Amino acid sequence: MKNDFVNPYKRSDASKNYVKIIDAAKKVFAVKGLETTIEDVAIEANVGVGSVYRRFSNKQQLVFAVSYEVLQEVFEEQERILHERFSADQMLIEIFACYARLSVIYGKIHEMILDILVSPDPIYEEFQCNIVSTADRIYDEIIRIGKESGRFVDEDPRLIKIILKNTISPQVVKQLAEITPIEHIAQKLAVLALHGIAKRS
Amino acid sequence: MKNDFVNPYKRSDASKNYVKIIDAAKKVFAVKGLETTIEDVAIEANVGVGSVYRRFSNKQQLVFAVSYEVLQEVFEEQERILHERFSADQMLIEIFACYARLSVIYGKIHEMILDILVSPDPIYEEFQCNIVSTADRIYDEIIRIGKESGRFVDEDPRLIKIILKNTISPQVVKQLAEITPIEHIAQKLAVLALHGIAKRS
Repeated sequence: MKNDFVNPYKRSDASKNYVKIIDAAKKVFAVKGLETTIEDVAIEANVGVGSVYRRFSNKQQLVFAVSYEVLQEVFEEQERILHERFSADQMLIEIFACYARLSVIYGKIHEMILDILVSPDPIYEEFQCNIVSTADRIYDEIIRIGKESGRFVDEDPRLIKIILKNTISPQVVKQLAEITPIEHIAQKLAVLALHGIAKRS
Repeated sequence: MKNDFVNPYKRSDASKNYVKIIDAAKKVFAVKGLETTIEDVAIEANVGVGSVYRRFSNKQQLVFAVSYEVLQEVFEEQERILHERFSADQMLIEIFACYARLSVIYGKIHEMILDILVSPDPIYEEFQCNIVSTADRIYDEIIRIGKESGRFVDEDPRLIKIILKNTISPQVVKQLAEITPIEHIAQKLAVLALHGIAKRS
Protein backbone atom coordinates (compact mmCIF):
# COMPACT_ATOMS: atom_id res chain seq x y z
CA MET A 1 0.00 0.00 0.00
CA LYS A 2 1.23 3.46 -0.86
CA ASN A 3 0.53 6.25 1.53
CA ASP A 4 -0.96 8.91 -0.69
CA PHE A 5 -2.25 11.11 2.10
CA VAL A 6 -2.20 14.68 0.82
CA ASN A 7 -1.32 17.39 3.28
CA PRO A 8 -2.41 20.49 1.37
CA TYR A 9 -0.37 22.69 3.71
CA LYS A 10 2.91 20.83 3.22
CA ARG A 11 5.09 22.59 0.69
CA SER A 12 8.26 21.02 -0.63
CA ASP A 13 9.65 24.52 -1.11
CA ALA A 14 8.75 25.49 2.47
CA SER A 15 10.98 28.29 3.62
CA LYS A 16 12.97 28.17 6.85
CA ASN A 17 10.50 30.67 8.30
CA TYR A 18 7.51 28.50 7.39
CA VAL A 19 9.06 25.52 9.16
CA LYS A 20 9.84 27.68 12.21
CA ILE A 21 6.25 28.89 12.37
CA ILE A 22 4.73 25.42 12.02
CA ASP A 23 7.08 23.95 14.62
CA ALA A 24 6.25 26.78 17.00
CA ALA A 25 2.52 26.38 16.29
CA LYS A 26 2.70 22.67 17.15
CA LYS A 27 4.31 23.53 20.48
CA VAL A 28 1.81 26.24 21.40
CA PHE A 29 -1.30 24.40 20.19
CA ALA A 30 -0.19 21.32 22.15
CA VAL A 31 -0.51 23.36 25.34
CA LYS A 32 -3.23 25.90 24.60
CA GLY A 33 -5.32 24.15 21.97
CA LEU A 34 -7.86 26.39 20.30
CA GLU A 35 -7.06 29.23 22.70
CA THR A 36 -3.79 29.72 20.85
CA THR A 37 -3.48 33.11 19.14
CA ILE A 38 -1.42 34.12 16.11
CA GLU A 39 0.59 36.30 18.52
CA ASP A 40 1.46 33.26 20.71
CA VAL A 41 2.79 31.48 17.66
CA ALA A 42 4.81 34.49 16.48
CA ILE A 43 6.44 34.83 19.92
CA GLU A 44 7.25 31.11 20.14
CA ALA A 45 8.66 31.15 16.58
CA ASN A 46 10.59 34.32 17.30
CA VAL A 47 9.22 36.04 14.19
CA GLY A 48 6.98 39.06 13.72
CA VAL A 49 3.19 38.66 13.69
CA GLY A 50 3.26 39.86 10.06
CA SER A 51 5.41 36.90 9.08
CA VAL A 52 2.78 34.52 10.41
CA TYR A 53 -0.06 36.37 8.68
CA ARG A 54 1.85 36.29 5.37
CA ARG A 55 1.61 32.49 5.46
CA PHE A 56 -1.65 31.94 7.34
CA SER A 57 -4.34 34.51 6.73
CA ASN A 58 -6.15 33.60 9.95
CA LYS A 59 -6.02 31.22 12.90
CA GLN A 60 -8.24 28.72 11.12
CA GLN A 61 -5.57 28.23 8.46
CA LEU A 62 -3.02 27.59 11.18
CA VAL A 63 -5.34 25.08 12.89
CA PHE A 64 -5.65 23.15 9.63
CA ALA A 65 -1.91 23.30 8.92
CA VAL A 66 -1.03 22.02 12.39
CA SER A 67 -3.69 19.28 12.28
CA TYR A 68 -2.62 18.05 8.84
CA GLU A 69 1.01 18.09 9.88
CA VAL A 70 0.36 16.02 12.99
CA LEU A 71 -1.96 13.57 11.26
CA GLN A 72 0.54 13.09 8.47
CA GLU A 73 3.00 11.87 11.10
CA VAL A 74 0.34 9.47 12.43
CA PHE A 75 -0.41 8.09 8.99
CA GLU A 76 3.28 7.68 8.15
CA GLU A 77 3.81 5.78 11.38
CA GLN A 78 0.77 3.56 10.67
CA GLU A 79 2.17 2.93 7.20
CA ARG A 80 5.44 1.72 8.68
CA ILE A 81 3.55 -0.57 11.08
CA LEU A 82 1.66 -2.17 8.18
CA HIS A 83 5.03 -3.26 6.79
CA GLU A 84 6.30 -4.76 10.05
CA ARG A 85 6.15 -8.48 10.80
CA PHE A 86 3.44 -8.22 13.42
CA SER A 87 0.50 -10.58 13.79
CA ALA A 88 -2.75 -8.98 12.66
CA ASP A 89 -3.85 -8.65 16.30
CA GLN A 90 -0.65 -6.93 17.32
CA MET A 91 -0.78 -4.76 14.23
CA LEU A 92 -4.25 -3.50 15.09
CA ILE A 93 -3.09 -2.65 18.61
CA GLU A 94 -0.08 -0.78 17.20
CA ILE A 95 -2.18 1.05 14.60
CA PHE A 96 -4.60 2.21 17.28
CA ALA A 97 -1.69 3.11 19.58
CA CYS A 98 -0.57 5.74 17.06
CA TYR A 99 -3.63 7.76 18.04
CA ALA A 100 -2.75 7.43 21.71
CA ARG A 101 0.79 8.66 21.07
CA LEU A 102 -0.75 11.64 19.35
CA SER A 103 -2.13 12.86 22.65
CA VAL A 104 1.03 12.02 24.56
CA ILE A 105 3.21 13.99 22.14
CA TYR A 106 0.79 16.67 21.02
CA GLY A 107 -1.45 17.22 24.05
CA LYS A 108 -4.35 19.47 23.22
CA ILE A 109 -3.83 19.09 19.47
CA HIS A 110 -5.39 15.64 19.81
CA GLU A 111 -8.52 17.09 21.42
CA MET A 112 -8.58 19.86 18.80
CA ILE A 113 -8.48 17.30 15.97
CA LEU A 114 -11.24 15.25 17.65
CA ASP A 115 -13.37 18.39 17.83
CA ILE A 116 -12.74 19.14 14.16
CA LEU A 117 -13.60 15.57 13.17
CA VAL A 118 -16.97 15.59 14.95
CA SER A 119 -17.91 19.15 13.95
CA PRO A 120 -20.93 19.54 11.65
CA ASP A 121 -19.49 22.85 10.36
CA PRO A 122 -19.01 22.58 6.57
CA ILE A 123 -15.64 24.37 6.70
CA TYR A 124 -14.24 21.14 8.16
CA GLU A 125 -15.76 18.87 5.54
CA GLU A 126 -12.75 18.66 3.23
CA PHE A 127 -10.44 17.98 6.16
CA GLN A 128 -12.78 15.27 7.48
CA CYS A 129 -12.99 13.63 4.04
CA ASN A 130 -9.21 13.58 3.67
CA ILE A 131 -8.73 11.96 7.04
CA VAL A 132 -11.52 9.44 6.54
CA SER A 133 -10.25 8.32 3.15
CA THR A 134 -6.70 7.83 4.43
CA ALA A 135 -7.92 5.98 7.52
CA ASP A 136 -10.09 3.86 5.22
CA ARG A 137 -7.10 2.63 3.26
CA ILE A 138 -5.28 1.74 6.46
CA TYR A 139 -8.30 -0.24 7.70
CA ASP A 140 -8.60 -2.01 4.33
CA GLU A 141 -4.99 -3.10 4.61
CA ILE A 142 -5.15 -4.34 8.19
CA ILE A 143 -8.36 -6.24 7.44
CA ARG A 144 -6.74 -7.81 4.38
CA ILE A 145 -3.79 -8.91 6.54
CA GLY A 146 -6.05 -10.16 9.32
CA LYS A 147 -8.15 -12.20 6.93
CA GLU A 148 -5.23 -13.60 4.93
CA SER A 149 -3.53 -14.76 8.10
CA GLY A 150 -6.80 -16.35 9.29
CA ARG A 151 -6.85 -14.23 12.45
CA PHE A 152 -10.06 -12.31 11.81
CA VAL A 153 -13.57 -13.71 11.81
CA ASP A 154 -15.20 -14.79 8.57
CA GLU A 155 -17.29 -11.71 7.97
CA ASP A 156 -17.67 -9.33 5.06
CA PRO A 157 -14.53 -7.11 5.19
CA ARG A 158 -16.75 -4.06 4.71
CA LEU A 159 -18.64 -4.99 7.86
CA ILE A 160 -15.40 -5.40 9.81
CA LYS A 161 -14.27 -2.02 8.50
CA ILE A 162 -17.43 -0.28 9.69
CA ILE A 163 -17.03 -1.96 13.10
CA LEU A 164 -13.37 -0.95 13.42
CA LYS A 165 -13.87 2.62 12.27
CA ASN A 166 -16.75 2.96 14.65
CA THR A 167 -14.79 1.41 17.51
CA ILE A 168 -12.27 4.25 17.60
CA SER A 169 -14.47 6.99 16.19
CA PRO A 170 -13.73 10.53 17.42
CA GLN A 171 -17.17 10.58 19.09
CA VAL A 172 -16.37 7.50 21.17
CA VAL A 173 -12.89 8.70 22.06
CA LYS A 174 -14.32 12.03 23.20
CA GLN A 175 -16.85 10.24 25.43
CA LEU A 176 -14.25 7.89 26.87
CA ALA A 177 -11.81 10.74 27.49
CA GLU A 178 -14.22 12.00 30.13
CA ILE A 179 -13.81 8.87 32.24
CA THR A 180 -10.41 7.40 31.36
CA PRO A 181 -6.98 8.90 30.54
CA ILE A 182 -6.95 9.66 26.81
CA GLU A 183 -3.60 7.89 26.28
CA HIS A 184 -5.08 4.56 27.50
CA ILE A 185 -8.15 4.65 25.29
CA ALA A 186 -6.63 3.34 22.06
CA GLN A 187 -5.20 0.23 23.70
CA LYS A 188 -8.45 -0.57 25.51
CA LEU A 189 -10.47 -0.11 22.34
CA ALA A 190 -8.12 -2.26 20.28
CA VAL A 191 -8.31 -5.10 22.80
CA LEU A 192 -12.09 -4.84 23.10
CA ALA A 193 -12.47 -4.76 19.30
CA LEU A 194 -10.29 -7.85 19.01
CA HIS A 195 -11.59 -9.88 21.94
CA GLY A 196 -14.91 -8.35 22.90
CA ILE A 197 -16.37 -7.75 26.33
CA ALA A 198 -17.03 -11.38 27.25
CA LYS A 199 -14.30 -13.14 29.20
CA ARG A 200 -12.76 -16.05 27.31
CA SER A 201 -13.96 -19.25 28.89
CA MET B 1 -35.20 -2.43 37.41
CA LYS B 2 -38.47 -0.75 36.70
CA ASN B 3 -39.26 0.26 33.18
CA ASP B 4 -40.22 3.90 33.53
CA PHE B 5 -40.11 4.72 29.85
CA VAL B 6 -42.61 7.46 29.23
CA ASN B 7 -44.52 7.42 25.99
CA PRO B 8 -45.98 10.91 25.92
CA TYR B 9 -48.45 9.87 23.25
CA LYS B 10 -49.88 6.95 25.18
CA ARG B 11 -53.11 7.88 26.92
CA SER B 12 -54.77 5.59 29.38
CA ASP B 13 -58.10 7.11 28.38
CA ALA B 14 -57.37 6.52 24.68
CA SER B 15 -60.61 6.28 22.75
CA LYS B 16 -61.42 3.43 20.43
CA ASN B 17 -60.84 5.80 17.53
CA TYR B 18 -57.39 6.75 18.79
CA VAL B 19 -56.38 3.09 18.98
CA LYS B 20 -57.76 2.46 15.50
CA ILE B 21 -55.75 5.37 14.10
CA ILE B 22 -52.50 4.35 15.79
CA ASP B 23 -52.88 0.73 14.71
CA ALA B 24 -53.58 1.85 11.15
CA ALA B 25 -50.63 4.25 11.25
CA LYS B 26 -48.28 1.45 12.33
CA LYS B 27 -49.44 -0.65 9.36
CA VAL B 28 -49.06 2.15 6.82
CA PHE B 29 -45.78 3.55 8.15
CA ALA B 30 -44.32 0.01 8.16
CA VAL B 31 -44.78 -0.08 4.39
CA LYS B 32 -44.44 3.54 3.28
CA GLY B 33 -42.24 5.05 5.98
CA LEU B 34 -42.03 8.83 5.86
CA GLU B 35 -43.97 8.90 2.59
CA THR B 36 -47.10 8.05 4.55
CA THR B 37 -49.77 10.75 4.45
CA ILE B 38 -52.52 11.56 6.94
CA GLU B 39 -54.95 10.48 4.21
CA ASP B 40 -53.31 7.04 3.95
CA VAL B 41 -53.77 6.57 7.67
CA ALA B 42 -57.40 7.72 7.62
CA ILE B 43 -58.21 5.27 4.82
CA GLU B 44 -56.46 2.37 6.57
CA ALA B 45 -58.22 3.22 9.86
CA ASN B 46 -61.52 3.62 8.08
CA VAL B 47 -62.12 7.03 9.65
CA GLY B 48 -62.40 10.52 8.21
CA VAL B 49 -59.27 12.67 7.69
CA GLY B 50 -60.75 15.10 10.23
CA SER B 51 -60.73 12.40 12.91
CA VAL B 52 -56.99 11.94 12.41
CA TYR B 53 -56.32 15.69 12.48
CA ARG B 54 -58.33 16.05 15.71
CA ARG B 55 -55.76 13.81 17.42
CA PHE B 56 -52.59 14.61 15.46
CA SER B 57 -52.28 18.16 14.25
CA ASN B 58 -49.74 17.17 11.58
CA LYS B 59 -47.82 14.23 10.22
CA GLN B 60 -44.89 14.92 12.53
CA GLN B 61 -47.12 14.23 15.55
CA LEU B 62 -48.13 10.94 14.00
CA VAL B 63 -44.50 10.03 13.31
CA PHE B 64 -43.65 10.59 16.97
CA ALA B 65 -46.70 8.69 18.21
CA VAL B 66 -45.92 5.68 16.03
CA SER B 67 -42.23 5.71 16.93
CA TYR B 68 -42.90 5.94 20.67
CA GLU B 69 -45.49 3.19 20.44
CA VAL B 70 -43.13 0.84 18.64
CA LEU B 71 -40.15 1.62 20.88
CA GLN B 72 -42.25 1.11 23.96
CA GLU B 73 -42.87 -2.44 22.76
CA VAL B 74 -39.11 -2.89 22.28
CA PHE B 75 -38.32 -1.61 25.76
CA GLU B 76 -41.00 -3.76 27.36
CA GLU B 77 -39.60 -6.80 25.60
CA GLN B 78 -36.05 -5.94 26.72
CA GLU B 79 -37.36 -5.52 30.24
CA ARG B 80 -38.81 -9.04 30.17
CA ILE B 81 -35.50 -10.41 28.88
CA LEU B 82 -33.61 -8.81 31.77
CA HIS B 83 -35.72 -10.92 34.12
CA GLU B 84 -35.14 -14.20 32.28
CA ARG B 85 -32.57 -16.76 33.43
CA PHE B 86 -30.19 -16.16 30.54
CA SER B 87 -26.41 -15.95 30.81
CA ALA B 88 -25.17 -12.38 30.39
CA ASP B 89 -23.87 -13.23 26.90
CA GLN B 90 -27.18 -14.68 25.80
CA MET B 91 -29.01 -11.79 27.38
CA LEU B 92 -27.02 -9.26 25.39
CA ILE B 93 -27.77 -11.15 22.19
CA GLU B 94 -31.48 -11.21 23.06
CA ILE B 95 -31.51 -7.52 24.01
CA PHE B 96 -29.92 -6.58 20.70
CA ALA B 97 -32.26 -8.96 18.85
CA CYS B 98 -35.22 -6.84 19.94
CA TYR B 99 -33.98 -4.16 17.56
CA ALA B 100 -33.77 -6.67 14.75
CA ARG B 101 -37.34 -7.83 15.35
CA LEU B 102 -38.36 -4.21 15.12
CA SER B 103 -37.46 -4.19 11.44
CA VAL B 104 -38.96 -7.61 10.80
CA ILE B 105 -42.30 -6.61 12.33
CA TYR B 106 -42.37 -2.91 11.55
CA GLY B 107 -40.42 -2.64 8.28
CA LYS B 108 -39.82 0.96 7.34
CA ILE B 109 -40.67 2.21 10.84
CA HIS B 110 -37.27 0.92 11.92
CA GLU B 111 -35.50 2.99 9.26
CA MET B 112 -37.68 5.97 10.15
CA ILE B 113 -36.67 5.70 13.82
CA LEU B 114 -32.99 5.37 12.87
CA ASP B 115 -33.31 8.53 10.78
CA ILE B 116 -34.93 10.37 13.68
CA LEU B 117 -32.24 9.20 16.09
CA VAL B 118 -29.37 10.48 13.94
CA SER B 119 -31.07 13.72 12.90
CA PRO B 120 -29.45 16.95 14.12
CA ASP B 121 -32.84 18.71 13.90
CA PRO B 122 -33.75 20.07 17.36
CA ILE B 123 -37.39 18.98 17.00
CA TYR B 124 -36.16 15.43 17.57
CA GLU B 125 -34.08 16.26 20.64
CA GLU B 126 -36.66 15.36 23.28
CA PHE B 127 -37.43 12.09 21.52
CA GLN B 128 -33.73 11.26 21.27
CA CYS B 129 -33.18 12.03 24.97
CA ASN B 130 -36.09 9.83 26.01
CA ILE B 131 -34.81 6.91 24.00
CA VAL B 132 -31.21 7.33 25.12
CA SER B 133 -32.09 7.48 28.80
CA THR B 134 -34.24 4.36 28.60
CA ALA B 135 -31.58 2.49 26.61
CA ASP B 136 -29.04 3.66 29.21
CA ARG B 137 -30.89 1.98 32.02
CA ILE B 138 -31.13 -1.24 30.06
CA TYR B 139 -27.38 -1.16 29.38
CA ASP B 140 -26.66 -0.45 33.07
CA GLU B 141 -28.67 -3.50 34.01
CA ILE B 142 -27.10 -5.89 31.52
CA ILE B 143 -23.63 -4.68 32.47
CA ARG B 144 -24.43 -5.20 36.15
CA ILE B 145 -25.59 -8.75 35.39
CA GLY B 146 -22.56 -9.44 33.17
CA LYS B 147 -20.14 -8.21 35.83
CA GLU B 148 -21.85 -9.93 38.74
CA SER B 149 -21.82 -13.24 36.92
CA GLY B 150 -18.13 -12.74 36.07
CA ARG B 151 -18.82 -12.95 32.34
CA PHE B 152 -17.70 -9.45 31.32
CA VAL B 153 -14.17 -8.12 31.34
CA ASP B 154 -12.89 -6.19 34.34
CA GLU B 155 -13.34 -2.71 32.99
CA ASP B 156 -15.08 0.39 34.27
CA PRO B 157 -18.83 -0.28 33.67
CA ARG B 158 -19.14 3.24 32.20
CA LEU B 159 -16.54 2.31 29.62
CA ILE B 160 -18.38 -0.89 28.73
CA LYS B 161 -21.60 1.08 28.43
CA ILE B 162 -20.07 3.57 25.98
CA ILE B 163 -18.68 0.65 23.95
CA LEU B 164 -22.02 -1.20 23.89
CA LYS B 165 -24.09 1.85 23.05
CA ASN B 166 -21.69 2.72 20.30
CA THR B 167 -21.68 -0.84 18.97
CA ILE B 168 -25.34 -0.72 18.00
CA SER B 169 -25.64 3.03 17.48
CA PRO B 170 -28.19 4.14 14.86
CA GLN B 171 -25.32 5.52 12.75
CA VAL B 172 -23.62 2.13 12.61
CA VAL B 173 -26.84 0.25 11.92
CA LYS B 174 -27.61 2.64 9.06
CA GLN B 175 -24.16 2.05 7.55
CA LEU B 176 -24.39 -1.72 7.94
CA ALA B 177 -27.90 -1.80 6.49
CA GLU B 178 -26.36 -0.79 3.17
CA ILE B 179 -24.32 -3.98 2.96
CA THR B 180 -26.16 -6.58 5.05
CA PRO B 181 -29.85 -7.42 5.69
CA ILE B 182 -31.02 -5.17 8.51
CA GLU B 183 -32.56 -8.09 10.44
CA HIS B 184 -29.14 -9.80 10.72
CA ILE B 185 -27.27 -6.75 11.99
CA ALA B 186 -28.19 -6.94 15.68
CA GLN B 187 -27.03 -10.55 16.03
CA LYS B 188 -23.73 -9.87 14.27
CA LEU B 189 -23.09 -6.79 16.39
CA ALA B 190 -23.90 -8.59 19.61
CA VAL B 191 -21.51 -11.42 18.79
CA LEU B 192 -18.75 -9.04 17.70
CA ALA B 193 -19.22 -6.92 20.83
CA LEU B 194 -18.99 -10.05 22.98
CA HIS B 195 -16.18 -11.89 21.23
CA GLY B 196 -14.45 -9.33 19.03
CA ILE B 197 -13.08 -9.70 15.53
CA ALA B 198 -10.13 -11.95 16.38
CA LYS B 199 -10.71 -15.68 16.05
CA ARG B 200 -10.42 -17.52 19.34
CA SER B 201 -7.20 -19.51 19.26
